[in-house]
Amino acid sequence: MTISMWLFVAIGLGVVSLGYALALYAWVSRQNAGGEREQAIAGYIQEGARAYLTKLYTALGVLVAVLGVIIALIFSLDMTRSVAERAFVLADNPWAGIWTALAFVLGALCSGLAGFLGMSIAVRANLRSAVAAKLGLNPAFRVAFYAGAVLGLAMVGTAVIGISLIYIFTGNPETILGFSLGASAMALLAKAGGGIFTKTADIAADLVGKVEVGIPEDDPRNPAVIADNVGDNVGDVAGMGADIFDSYVASVVAAMILGVGVGQTAAAGDGDPRFYVVFPLVLCTVGMLASFIGIQFVRVGRDGKPGAALNNGTVITCVIFAVLATLLNYAGGFNTGVLISTLAGLVIAVLIGFCTDYFTNDERRPVQQVAAMSKSGSAITIITGLSYGLISILPSILGIAGATLAAYFAAEAYGVSGIYGIGIAAVGMLSITGVIVSADAYGPIVDNAKGIAEMSEMGHEVVERCDTLDSAGNTAKAITKGFAISAAALTVLALFAAYGEVLEGLGVSLDIDLQKPIVLAGVLLGATCPPVFSALLMLAVTKNAFVMIEEIRSQFRARPGILKGTELPDYARCVSIASSGALTSLILPAVIAVIVPLAVGFLMGTDALGGFLGGSIFTGVIFALFMSNSGGLWDNGKKYIEAGHHGGPGSEAHKAAVVGDTVGDPFKDTAGPSINTLITVMSLISSLFAPVIAALTLVK
Amino acid sequence: MTISMWLFVAIGLGVVSLGYALALYAWVSRQNAGGEREQAIAGYIQEGARAYLTKLYTALGVLVAVLGVIIALIFSLDMTRSVAERAFVLADNPWAGIWTALAFVLGALCSGLAGFLGMSIAVRANLRSAVAAKLGLNPAFRVAFYAGAVLGLAMVGTAVIGISLIYIFTGNPETILGFSLGASAMALLAKAGGGIFTKTADIAADLVGKVEVGIPEDDPRNPAVIADNVGDNVGDVAGMGADIFDSYVASVVAAMILGVGVGQTAAAGDGDPRFYVVFPLVLCTVGMLASFIGIQFVRVGRDGKPGAALNNGTVITCVIFAVLATLLNYAGGFNTGVLISTLAGLVIAVLIGFCTDYFTNDERRPVQQVAAMSKSGSAITIITGLSYGLISILPSILGIAGATLAAYFAAEAYGVSGIYGIGIAAVGMLSITGVIVSADAYGPIVDNAKGIAEMSEMGHEVVERCDTLDSAGNTAKAITKGFAISAAALTVLALFAAYGEVLEGLGVSLDIDLQKPIVLAGVLLGATCPPVFSALLMLAVTKNAFVMIEEIRSQFRARPGILKGTELPDYARCVSIASSGALTSLILPAVIAVIVPLAVGFLMGTDALGGFLGGSIFTGVIFALFMSNSGGLWDNGKKYIEAGHHGGPGSEAHKAAVVGDTVGDPFKDTAGPSINTLITVMSLISSLFAPVIAALTLVK
Repeated sequence: MTISMWLFVAIGLGVVSLGYALALYAWVSRQNAGGEREQAIAGYIQEGARAYLTKLYTALGVLVAVLGVIIALIFSLDMTRSVAERAFVLADNPWAGIWTALAFVLGALCSGLAGFLGMSIAVRANLRSAVAAKLGLNPAFRVAFYAGAVLGLAMVGTAVIGISLIYIFTGNPETILGFSLGASAMALLAKAGGGIFTKTADIAADLVGKVEVGIPEDDPRNPAVIADNVGDNVGDVAGMGADIFDSYVASVVAAMILGVGVGQTAAAGDGDPRFYVVFPLVLCTVGMLASFIGIQFVRVGRDGKPGAALNNGTVITCVIFAVLATLLNYAGGFNTGVLISTLAGLVIAVLIGFCTDYFTNDERRPVQQVAAMSKSGSAITIITGLSYGLISILPSILGIAGATLAAYFAAEAYGVSGIYGIGIAAVGMLSITGVIVSADAYGPIVDNAKGIAEMSEMGHEVVERCDTLDSAGNTAKAITKGFAISAAALTVLALFAAYGEVLEGLGVSLDIDLQKPIVLAGVLLGATCPPVFSALLMLAVTKNAFVMIEEIRSQFRARPGILKGTELPDYARCVSIASSGALTSLILPAVIAVIVPLAVGFLMGTDALGGFLGGSIFTGVIFALFMSNSGGLWDNGKKYIEAGHHGGPGSEAHKAAVVGDTVGDPFKDTAGPSINTLITVMSLISSLFAPVIAALTLVK
Repeated sequence: MTISMWLFVAIGLGVVSLGYALALYAWVSRQNAGGEREQAIAGYIQEGARAYLTKLYTALGVLVAVLGVIIALIFSLDMTRSVAERAFVLADNPWAGIWTALAFVLGALCSGLAGFLGMSIAVRANLRSAVAAKLGLNPAFRVAFYAGAVLGLAMVGTAVIGISLIYIFTGNPETILGFSLGASAMALLAKAGGGIFTKTADIAADLVGKVEVGIPEDDPRNPAVIADNVGDNVGDVAGMGADIFDSYVASVVAAMILGVGVGQTAAAGDGDPRFYVVFPLVLCTVGMLASFIGIQFVRVGRDGKPGAALNNGTVITCVIFAVLATLLNYAGGFNTGVLISTLAGLVIAVLIGFCTDYFTNDERRPVQQVAAMSKSGSAITIITGLSYGLISILPSILGIAGATLAAYFAAEAYGVSGIYGIGIAAVGMLSITGVIVSADAYGPIVDNAKGIAEMSEMGHEVVERCDTLDSAGNTAKAITKGFAISAAALTVLALFAAYGEVLEGLGVSLDIDLQKPIVLAGVLLGATCPPVFSALLMLAVTKNAFVMIEEIRSQFRARPGILKGTELPDYARCVSIASSGALTSLILPAVIAVIVPLAVGFLMGTDALGGFLGGSIFTGVIFALFMSNSGGLWDNGKKYIEAGHHGGPGSEAHKAAVVGDTVGDPFKDTAGPSINTLITVMSLISSLFAPVIAALTLVK
């Protein structure tokens, strides 16, 4: 098959994926939406989600407009001619800036569209899943999972269509960096903002509701209860979706850029040198096909184990993908080294997922140990959880290092640049994104369904079914979260290599030997960014939670009818505090993400910037793993005690475990996963602006 | 002056320093030791310290014997001839192994001797300082500070004598790596072991004493009270002393190794190419002289501010050192670039000390914010403290990066290798070690004095004076801790450069470009070691505290007379649990420190090992700063509330702050500072074994 044919196949399957998503959207929307009472409650959640999305998209619009204009100007005008002899690759073509800026806007639009579809259906599916739970576990599961699949399928569809179109029109993978940066800008706002939103609402609702006035979780008398439920969607649907969309696109564009050099030395397929550039899209196409099939296997059998259903779906999709990729390799005469790289990424992603599960599963030693230690008070709970979180880094890092080396040497052994192998391993990991995201977005939907079932008093049996579905979501989440972080790690390693490749294309050789002090200084600065960034997000959570706690208290004081149940609280105020607080708090972190790498590049040179990116990746991956796993561990430690161990609910151990869980909340849902986005944005900014930096930097 | 003359001056001043230490030892011992009651209590502490030291030195003896024999064998036998063409530098000389092994043993002995003197006088001075406090603040301060100076002066004296002698006998700075590794072996056991000991006792004593049975701190009825007081000495005198001794020696040996190459290109002084090798010892000599003078200025004036007295002493010593070094530079015709490098290190060390103070001082925003947030419960205290701890990394990292660049480019500007400048900056930072350690060792002595004053009921006024002295110790500690970490950071950066220099001497060129996947894998593995190491130490603390808690409870159960005050508890049991627990828990962390770098080197090659060292330095410095500063911040947050803010002692805010302080204990006194030792040991092992690794590695 020629390159053009592959591109049209990719677009074709992208359209099918998007169409499939819309069909599922329609199917879920047609399900029974229940009676007036539950519709009213779901209505508040929908309303809150709409209010947040409006603010989010406005902020995104501003960010995209500003950055878009800057990109258009910088890449259109021949700014370098007077400053340096070294000219831009793109400088002769005044349209290059417009194309890059358009690609940037398109990236943000595609991610925004997928997120919008996912959010819209999530806030409809929660209600419909709860209503379906009256009939049984399986119908409720199907509604939630198919709604989750809307996000998964829409994401991969729009991403592949967008990337393919840009490549067809410009023929230059570096322009796609703009598309990827657009997706990253969306991810930065949606993931970090969503993370702050959801934990602000969660902590405030718990501290006043459960602790101060003693009403249960998901009680409609709590003014923050709707914000809390909106937060689940905002953080885990819109945020998580944008985050994985971002990694997915970035891995493809990094591999495409690395493929340019490969095509000049090794040809495959029908001998077209562009084959290796387009090959990442071929893998995406195979991944989509595997996902379509895999989704069919996600069913709850008669034994009713939704957690197993989700995990089986993931594993089956992996197997199908591996089989299809291998068949294609032999049918198409592709490069075997590249196939091995692909499979290395895939296998290690699954292994890391299971390692993460070990550290956060309540049937394993770490969670049980933390639960047991909770008997000695909350300080010991914290120390033990932090310690296990730090130890949990080890297997994942071994996996990432192993995948990197395996992919590199497999490609080299078959005559292809090893760096390209690393890029392809990242694409291999992310090829099954469609199914991963579907399983992940299922979580907040059933969490919401449980809330709606409780708030509208659907009865014990329905609530219990929703609870079973919810636990399954948590099991799936542990695995997909490990997957997301390791995929992001391999993606930024590929982007890191792409940064060198872009510079090489300009005739600038990158030397990031750690023995050079300017590189060392760059690494130290880069290594400092992820911890500082995560600290800013956590401080934003505590600060906004403080404001919301005051709001809840003042509503209770001003209108005593709320607690008696005779008067409705003002849900919208809490949603508004969470929304504005989250987006305002993002200004400084966004500056770190966008301005700091540019400042390092312009002031200290391209080598220092290379070191900076390396440093941010090292600590970024470590802190992301540490924070996510500690958080998951405390969460499940608390649930383990609530299941009746060590004195059960209300015991001293339980109180200590609640402290652990509250500390873990911003760890696992705000700071940890947002670090992925940070390092991706910094890597993309650096690669995209590499030509400008190389021309204008003070250190040459 | 010739090189030999400089060496004899260094040894001469080293002997003076040691003599000064012994004179102060005698002076402190002659002070009034009070009556029978306080002597009995101090006797228990002395007894406990002796019991711990016996176990510590036994463990050290075993470790030194095993490693010493290995070193002697490897460096004496010509193991490589059959395996590789590349021969050892030392292989032709069968005595080289014996020399290196002797140097190794001598390093452990010198550090052990200084620590022994420091500990012996500390457990005498505590009692004598408490007794002197009956007369007034100033006499008590003098006893404690002069006792602290015993450790400081003994340390620099033995270090300089040891290094000079080895250089005189072998003429090879690489042999001194053995001496440095001996000091590091001692530091690993003393610092990490002492850190586990002290926090095991502290947490257990508090959780049972204060929380369960409700007796005050330092109550003689608590079976763990002696272990707790012994712990202060063990962690903050023996451990901290060994840690800084370790950095001091390592910085000197790194600079000496880097000086070999410099002498071949630039000559100074009387033109001897060995000038740059010996110059670090010249700086140490100047530093000792400055310390002798600086110590005279540490006096409490009539206004009675011991904290200011300690800090003034440090600043005055810095100024004297800077003046002396500058005078010497112009008188001796030394290299101005090297002078600038020296001063850059010194200035930045002081600046970083003050930055650390900002984040842990209760008159500043971070501590006050954490205290205020404590009103919302312990989870918020933890999140806020962790966040500020993470942010506190930034100024120190900027300082370290700035010092590195300044030292590098200053040296280069004056025709000397920039890497040598970095080594000299580390020596410059550590030149005033004598005063720093004196001020630091003062802390646990007055802490103990307060305990003895309370336990032997010396009366309100005496206890209050001891309390004033104790707070001063905490203020000084914040600054010296920031100093210790930044000095260690610059030292390991110099050792890192020395590793490359050693390989270069063997004809092996080191290429640690981050674009090479084997280097990337090395960095990722290295970056994982400090977090995992610190987690193991923290788990050891919680595990041992658990055992001790059981012991205390069983003593209270079995002998009800203890709580009535009619029967003495079995103090020795708790001391024994803390001692054995600490040293047994060290086996796995020690394996990480010693075996992992060797494994990486032999399996993945010298480039990967270079990356590994780099990675361990990046996260090592970050985690050390983060953990130390968070811990200090929580500690002072609690004290701020105890001073009457936000409801004062017993309030909800206070309870939350106590949780923060307990989490911070192993952070700041066990895990954080031990990381310094870890990265130093790993760097030294790598440099020392570099010839063997280069010859035998699987990857060439």
